Amino acid sequence: MLTPDKIKPLITYLKETQHIKSAISLLSWDQETYMPSGSSQARAEQLSGLMALVHDRQVGREMSERLSKLIDLKTGELVSETAEPFPALLREVWRDYDRATKLPSDFVRALSLETALAHPIWIEARKNNNFSQFSPSLRKIVALKKEEAEYLAYKDSPYDALLDEYEPGMTVAQLVPIFSSLKDKLLPLLEKIAASPRQPRTDFLDEFYNESAQIRFGEQVLTAMGFSFQTGRQDLSTHPFTTSFHPSDVRLTTRVDTHDLLSSLFSSIHEGGHGIYDQGLLQEYFGTPLGEAISLGIHESQSRLWENSVGRSRSFWKHFFPILKETFPRPLKDLDLETWYAGINCVRPSFIRVESDEVTYNLHIMLRFEIERDLIENNLPVEQLPDRWNELMQRYIGRKPTTDAEGILQDIHWAGGAFGYFPTYTLGNLYAAQLFNQAKAEIVDLSAQMAKGDLLALKTWLNEKVHRWGRQYTSEELIHRITGEPLNPDYFTKALYKKYAELYRLS
Amino acid sequence: MLTPDKIKPLITYLKETQHIKSAISLLSWDQETYMPSGSSQARAEQLSGLMALVHDRQVGREMSERLSKLIDLKTGELVSETAEPFPALLREVWRDYDRATKLPSDFVRALSLETALAHPIWIEARKNNNFSQFSPSLRKIVALKKEEAEYLAYKDSPYDALLDEYEPGMTVAQLVPIFSSLKDKLLPLLEKIAASPRQPRTDFLDEFYNESAQIRFGEQVLTAMGFSFQTGRQDLSTHPFTTSFHPSDVRLTTRVDTHDLLSSLFSSIHEGGHGIYDQGLLQEYFGTPLGEAISLGIHESQSRLWENSVGRSRSFWKHFFPILKETFPRPLKDLDLETWYAGINCVRPSFIRVESDEVTYNLHIMLRFEIERDLIENNLPVEQLPDRWNELMQRYIGRKPTTDAEGILQDIHWAGGAFGYFPTYTLGNLYAAQLFNQAKAEIVDLSAQMAKGDLLALKTWLNEKVHRWGRQYTSEELIHRITGEPLNPDYFTKALYKKYAELYRLS
Repeated sequence: MLTPDKIKPLITYLKETQHIKSAISLLSWDQETYMPSGSSQARAEQLSGLMALVHDRQVGREMSERLSKLIDLKTGELVSETAEPFPALLREVWRDYDRATKLPSDFVRALSLETALAHPIWIEARKNNNFSQFSPSLRKIVALKKEEAEYLAYKDSPYDALLDEYEPGMTVAQLVPIFSSLKDKLLPLLEKIAASPRQPRTDFLDEFYNESAQIRFGEQVLTAMGFSFQTGRQDLSTHPFTTSFHPSDVRLTTRVDTHDLLSSLFSSIHEGGHGIYDQGLLQEYFGTPLGEAISLGIHESQSRLWENSVGRSRSFWKHFFPILKETFPRPLKDLDLETWYAGINCVRPSFIRVESDEVTYNLHIMLRFEIERDLIENNLPVEQLPDRWNELMQRYIGRKPTTDAEGILQDIHWAGGAFGYFPTYTLGNLYAAQLFNQAKAEIVDLSAQMAKGDLLALKTWLNEKVHRWGRQYTSEELIHRITGEPLNPDYFTKALYKKYAELYRLS
Repeated sequence: MLTPDKIKPLITYLKETQHIKSAISLLSWDQETYMPSGSSQARAEQLSGLMALVHDRQVGREMSERLSKLIDLKTGELVSETAEPFPALLREVWRDYDRATKLPSDFVRALSLETALAHPIWIEARKNNNFSQFSPSLRKIVALKKEEAEYLAYKDSPYDALLDEYEPGMTVAQLVPIFSSLKDKLLPLLEKIAASPRQPRTDFLDEFYNESAQIRFGEQVLTAMGFSFQTGRQDLSTHPFTTSFHPSDVRLTTRVDTHDLLSSLFSSIHEGGHGIYDQGLLQEYFGTPLGEAISLGIHESQSRLWENSVGRSRSFWKHFFPILKETFPRPLKDLDLETWYAGINCVRPSFIRVESDEVTYNLHIMLRFEIERDLIENNLPVEQLPDRWNELMQRYIGRKPTTDAEGILQDIHWAGGAFGYFPTYTLGNLYAAQLFNQAKAEIVDLSAQMAKGDLLALKTWLNEKVHRWGRQYTSEELIHRITGEPLNPDYFTKALYKKYAELYRLS
């Protein structure tokens, strides 16, 4: 990009900071993949040392001096005019700067200490299946997050200030009607599915599937999706994730269970969606907000689109099921495409969010959203969480978990202070459906292409419509630019009704 | 350690810097092991950005402010008294600071740019077997290294200033008699060996050896040596190396050739020696000079001691040869220990340094030392290097290489500006022999232990005598403390004569 001379010193500084952030990302990736077990203490110290260094650079004198030459640090207004994309770039730099400087250093340290302490306590409590071991930590973290919301400031709800970290601009006022509409559609659908006499076979999914063949098949699918192994790779870790050090170095992980064919496969496709986004960010903007993903919701839309709209579609498997059968002839040889397709789309309510199907998944998120609001807005006492959790599970999923481990203690997020994060999963599902609907309208014969295993037109469409823009637009603006309307949950529920009415022969 | 309050701010600052340096090491390790090929440009930029950051921290205002409270920055004298080990710690911090601040920033940038440019040119020139492609780069680098010596200052020879970077305190005046004594012993030995009617069999070494079995066997040996896989690991790379991010995270690499059994095996043992040193540095001193290796020569002594004094000894193979035969029954089943032992110690002069045996290796280094001195002290024109090289090869090895690639262009060092580095390889060999001689005197039944595969007493002895001290002593002091005398090349030549007189039945 042709950067105006006056902006160059800021961009140089941002890129230097980004180098440290990328190093932190590599250290974290390595921690989950190859690091020897005896080094966790040293690595934790190193990470926190480098994160402190990054924080100092983000809020320190050198940053404010460079930024104040371009922007009024109080209001965020540009000091002088400049051509696109620089107003957007500066707007987003200021957004980050403003959020970071609103939080006092003592507070940042306190929160970081508390969450560092909470992590092993949560692990232990979950292992012992005992929420009361974790609740003192959680109480402190909730108190800190309320304090954080006050520092950050908000208009209507303190929860808005927390949401804004993960999904800039998103508010409780926008989320409530969305979840309400989802609830009205999903609960009746779930009831009908449960009552359907037609229930798919899934027995073949937990046969023995050779580990390295699973990985190889996943890589074949990733390659077809357009994930580049020239600028990326896939490794193994306990929990699958995607990380990126630069658009030319994007790393996925998956996990493999020899008796669970879908776990590794859908992890690879899901993380591949994230990875394709990261590979699609423009290299020339690396280190600036224009080279970063817009929001967690949009990021998740990319993984969900590939995982659900593509990876759980009949078209996709028209091409890939024969290949899968060749890869695993023993367990799959007598299976036909329809049985496979029904099996991988089986709806079976689970207590565990990450094991949930497309129909129930968002109900798990709704439950967490309600609880988080109760904690942040309404002072729900932490002690009452397990009861509240179980009561909502009964209402949405129809059953109560019998243990804390498969209930309130199942997710890592709260131990890390990530309140306002969960709703981005549902937003991801909704954005995905709306984007995929648009892609089908714009790409000629998309289903036919998918049925031939040709996924590159879709990948290129996403590159052009979503990835290349970085943080140039807000999520709201981006979705409107692409689809001509604001976020609309109906695309998601309509696609779901169409698919499951057919699969379960619903009236 | 109980750090005096006045020293704490400095140590905190040093540790922060070390975190960035460790991140750089991980980025470099990753570059050689797992990084996707498409990311080399971004990684190079990231590394140079972070190295600049480290340099700024090492010579900047914050460093000088903290250091000047403890040390007179001009003379290196302590401002006030303090108990051991802090005088040594501060002496070494000042040594690094003083060297770094003597070099102007413009000079550092120019050298770093020139060597970055030279690297691909050297690769290309070697591929094309054409020294004249590389000589313009080399001329510039030599000129810069002479300039560097002037900045750093020296008493007798400008080459001393360069040596001092890799082997603090070492001088041309010390090296000349050492190499002269080596030459007087090695050349006659080599002649006798060549004339011996008894030449060992080596045909079994290039049979087919399964790759993963080679790696597994290497790991077995590493474990017996006491290299910890709790705080370390081994991966594959084109050129074997060792790197460390902390004593609790030390990484080796090896390379495997299915038709060269010794390549991977001795790489693992050699790098394992380096790795055991790094794992043996005291964690409490991490980030300070007392948590760093003393010199390249002492580091190399650890790898050479394990590789040659242990790994090429009869005792070692008494235990490991039966295991190796079980691992590779087909190619080794009819071989006896003596044939194996003679084969792995075969002396066969090569043009290539890294393929050389124990007897000829130091002759390769002597040649390089003489050429480097000629370049730095005597203004030998770069154009004359190939002739000078070939003439010395004829004198030491008895044959002239016919191509630049197997002559003057074989090593990467000069392209990287590493003048004064080569002598540390020979110093490593000499230190190793002197240390191993002392170990045999102090450890009861060391040979018998080795013959049972028990190498831990030796490892513990090295931990106690060498590793734990970091940079507390200079190499000269350390060798004297351990062996009661200064560096003495006779231990090396005596051990060599004893071994090869027997192997080749020399009179």
